[in-house]
Amino acid sequence: MASPPGPFTLVALGVVRGGRTEAEDDHWGDVEAEIVLQANAVGPDAATGLEEFSHIDVVYVFDRVSPDRVTRGVRHPRENPDWPEVGILAQRARLRPNRLGVSTCELLGVEGMVLRVRGLDAIDATPVLDVKPHVREFDPRRPVRQPAWISELMRDYW
Amino acid sequence: MASPPGPFTLVALGVVRGGRTEAEDDHWGDVEAEIVLQANAVGPDAATGLEEFSHIDVVYVFDRVSPDRVTRGVRHPRENPDWPEVGILAQRARLRPNRLGVSTCELLGVEGMVLRVRGLDAIDATPVLDVKPHVREFDPRRPVRQPAWISELMRDYW
Repeated sequence: MASPPGPFTLVALGVVRGGRTEAEDDHWGDVEAEIVLQANAVGPDAATGLEEFSHIDVVYVFDRVSPDRVTRGVRHPRENPDWPEVGILAQRARLRPNRLGVSTCELLGVEGMVLRVRGLDAIDATPVLDVKPHVREFDPRRPVRQPAWISELMRDYW
Repeated sequence: MASPPGPFTLVALGVVRGGRTEAEDDHWGDVEAEIVLQANAVGPDAATGLEEFSHIDVVYVFDRVSPDRVTRGVRHPRENPDWPEVGILAQRARLRPNRLGVSTCELLGVEGMVLRVRGLDAIDATPVLDVKPHVREFDPRRPVRQPAWISELMRDYW
């Protein structure tokens, strides 16, 4: 087998400002914050036209997770023994290799390099690696099936 | 303003095998491929339990885009003058800073370190930075609004 590609060096295109200062499991739905785009990474017009979209997809780094806590195998989600022990790629936990988060949130407004958002599950000062418009056609084209444990886990998330 | 966080060094957790060998704009829906997880990055049980989900969210690198083609300002999507000139963060084009793609596709099967997928819009040998289960509760909780140009652009995408 060929050697794996990479590593890849990525920069913060933006930083979360405001919202929560500590990671919490639940009740993210009403949290408001900003994403401040970084002039060293993108031009001043990088977000032009974004306000035509109601939602954005945000890729960010769980940078407060210490690398030595990253799990590469299985664990119980939220360390809850009532839920099955599943692989780290079968859950959305933050202590994952590469520590990447992906989340869709509401875009409340755009003022130059500042994006105002609601329901972004990332804390103050989180580095943002990408912002994309949320596009309806990228949603699943067939019915979504998921196990009962994750529906239970997500019950109070928003 | 504080100096921006990062840079961040990320590794490929997997590599796309099969599917298309050249990037094309449209007709991705029926393309089948595999994501081969990399033993240097994740454990052999990293995908345990993933087969309970019908769809996965995949974060990958558009590594065939030459860094000097990356756009930091505005451009016409697909260089089509009929569509408005918008910022790179208001479109999903691959020549974006950090060259990250995020896509939801169907998961057809899991055999150890190999995930069989359909409708992943990434070409053969693409490095994969993360795989997450697609969870219904992460879909937008309110109606999605988007401009007409992107619905037009997406017409033949799948």
